[in-house]
Amino acid sequence: MDRGRGRRGGTALLLQKATNQLTRRTNERLVLRTIYERSPLSRADVSRLTGLTRTTVSGVVDDLIELGLTEEAGFGPSTGGKAPIMLRVPTDARHTVGVHVDDERISGAVVNLHGEIRQRASAPLRSRDGETAIAGLEALVDRLVGAAERPLLGIGVGAPGLIDTASGVVRWAVNLDWRELPLGERLARRTGLPIRVVNDSQAAAMAEWTFGHHEGASAMIVLKVGWGIGAGIILGGRLYQGDDSGAGEVGHIRVRDDGPSCRCGNRGCLETVAGVRGLLARATDLLASGVRSSLGEGELTLEAVAGAYREEDGLAAQVVMETAMALGRTLGTITGTLDIRDIVVIGPMSALGEGWLAAVRREARRSALPLLAERSTIRFGRLGPDVVELGAAALLMTSELGLVPAA
Amino acid sequence: MDRGRGRRGGTALLLQKATNQLTRRTNERLVLRTIYERSPLSRADVSRLTGLTRTTVSGVVDDLIELGLTEEAGFGPSTGGKAPIMLRVPTDARHTVGVHVDDERISGAVVNLHGEIRQRASAPLRSRDGETAIAGLEALVDRLVGAAERPLLGIGVGAPGLIDTASGVVRWAVNLDWRELPLGERLARRTGLPIRVVNDSQAAAMAEWTFGHHEGASAMIVLKVGWGIGAGIILGGRLYQGDDSGAGEVGHIRVRDDGPSCRCGNRGCLETVAGVRGLLARATDLLASGVRSSLGEGELTLEAVAGAYREEDGLAAQVVMETAMALGRTLGTITGTLDIRDIVVIGPMSALGEGWLAAVRREARRSALPLLAERSTIRFGRLGPDVVELGAAALLMTSELGLVPAA
Repeated sequence: MDRGRGRRGGTALLLQKATNQLTRRTNERLVLRTIYERSPLSRADVSRLTGLTRTTVSGVVDDLIELGLTEEAGFGPSTGGKAPIMLRVPTDARHTVGVHVDDERISGAVVNLHGEIRQRASAPLRSRDGETAIAGLEALVDRLVGAAERPLLGIGVGAPGLIDTASGVVRWAVNLDWRELPLGERLARRTGLPIRVVNDSQAAAMAEWTFGHHEGASAMIVLKVGWGIGAGIILGGRLYQGDDSGAGEVGHIRVRDDGPSCRCGNRGCLETVAGVRGLLARATDLLASGVRSSLGEGELTLEAVAGAYREEDGLAAQVVMETAMALGRTLGTITGTLDIRDIVVIGPMSALGEGWLAAVRREARRSALPLLAERSTIRFGRLGPDVVELGAAALLMTSELGLVPAA
Repeated sequence: MDRGRGRRGGTALLLQKATNQLTRRTNERLVLRTIYERSPLSRADVSRLTGLTRTTVSGVVDDLIELGLTEEAGFGPSTGGKAPIMLRVPTDARHTVGVHVDDERISGAVVNLHGEIRQRASAPLRSRDGETAIAGLEALVDRLVGAAERPLLGIGVGAPGLIDTASGVVRWAVNLDWRELPLGERLARRTGLPIRVVNDSQAAAMAEWTFGHHEGASAMIVLKVGWGIGAGIILGGRLYQGDDSGAGEVGHIRVRDDGPSCRCGNRGCLETVAGVRGLLARATDLLASGVRSSLGEGELTLEAVAGAYREEDGLAAQVVMETAMALGRTLGTITGTLDIRDIVVIGPMSALGEGWLAAVRREARRSALPLLAERSTIRFGRLGPDVVELGAAALLMTSELGLVPAA
């Protein structure tokens, strides 16, 4: 009878088998995500929330328990009969390595499923030369992979620039001189682990979305303001990357015709005006032109300007307002284009504090249709300086376990 | 036995019935859309493309034929056995009324399922007073509904401003003085037909996407440049409207600090600089300041400036380039933010032709990350002046028949 079937419907049988496996995997992901997001839940709760039958849920939960991805955790309240056994995803069931390649440092973290950091490591980025930077990155990854005490989902890397996440190729990292670098493939060959490479601001958006509590919204813009400026955009609960993974490259929007030249080849890019570099360059110019200030030329750092700004230094106030206005205008443009209410500002420039953010808000409001601008909120992020590492790790939680909806 | 079931599982039975109806409706839409997009197809083709069984497809096709939404149209090529009967959606199976409320006119069309216009009507917008404008709109709708010779899917209205498509309320049409106007509800009560109200640029994007042949892309930006400026954004094959249906309100992006005041309450909005109004105001200023030109002050219209520009008039060239640069910069900003390759420019300013568009392209390229800007194409739309009517009609083809993926 088997042979008869084989002759008649071999392909059909294979297809059926593939379909069954796909269904099983889909169900596993659905059940795991439901428990992850809403735990503690009983098997009956999971059945109710997913629409799967009790039998299917029981089978899937057994598998997840065997994989260590679900555990039983005491009894829930009885609704008349026997008290139900509650389920949850063990916080440390899996770990992920998240790496942040910054302009000056490479930082990495071993992250658990709730965004808690279990290990850390970092190293200075000794050279902007591509190969030296990669060697440093590989050494750091080796250390973190070696240090991990739980099964690893994989490695997520957030780096500045234009990155093709599907292929893991860094197309162009303007500030790192990386071009067409197959970073994902190299790390995969080295470690044998799943790898996701993503733009740093896009990673940050994934982190704020996944671990930063977004309260029911389905869209969010995360603007990262440091030496570079970039945005990560969440639409419909997913990371939006655009046609070529370049969505959110707002740092190279032209904001000033006579602005400083940028490494990208254009002039007056937002990040040359409103980022740390723009802030310090402008302060230097004003000092040189004789504007009085408590700041000395030799000590011009973001921290020094932030301190002087808090002390109501006039020069500091002027440069801080100027950067805030350029940034606010760009945010107004983005609000007018995308109509997203929840706008999150993160990155080193956040050190300038609430006064700077208030100026950004004011200018954003003047730069878009009032009815749209009124409804948007511009706030600081809820995660700390590890936001890129966390977001890069969250990408693996998506690709490997389906815990966060995929792009 | 029925009673026994009823007692035990009344709700379950109802749910099952609702689920069956939903499945049936989903299957009908899937089959109809498949035939619409890929016809002529045989029943076997439909089964293969949809993954539905032959029996299900046959049942659904019978229903669609009875509804007049599908017809048999000759025989396809035989693949050995009997030649299969081919199916298609009759072009005029349903009609839709599409209406475009412009700043100066209301235009309407009866549109078939392939975007062909069967009837037209239009009327001047005699007053910007809300009630007078609505009365004119209602009269036009009555005429078109009366003139329709096929079953109508409903009425789609594209109007300028911030419109909540879900509720059919015009939140704020800056140039029409409409505020919180429940247009959808009024038209529904008057006609008894399904109504969709949408921003005019969003409607135009739906039209270019549905009827303009987009060749496999999944995203598109349609920029409408006339007295007002607005964009419609297609993402993932669907109209993207944002948190408050305001996506694409780029006309009120601030582009010039010292720019003209805008009816929205801000200054220097893109549409006051780069739209028809900005073009003519700038030409008037230059003439008044003594710049020589073949243009006379009394005859300043878009057509006159376009003509003078073609004749290489210096003043015309200057104002055309200035508007192109403001527009190009905004497009660069949008490209940098969204990373969408296919950018379509439509609207009255298209009369300025290829020279203007080339200047828009140049400036857009200078205003975004080169690697992103290089890949985007900026082109004129493929549909004529009826683009808003067509897009408003396409919305009904989505909501009523599922022929185009919904937002």
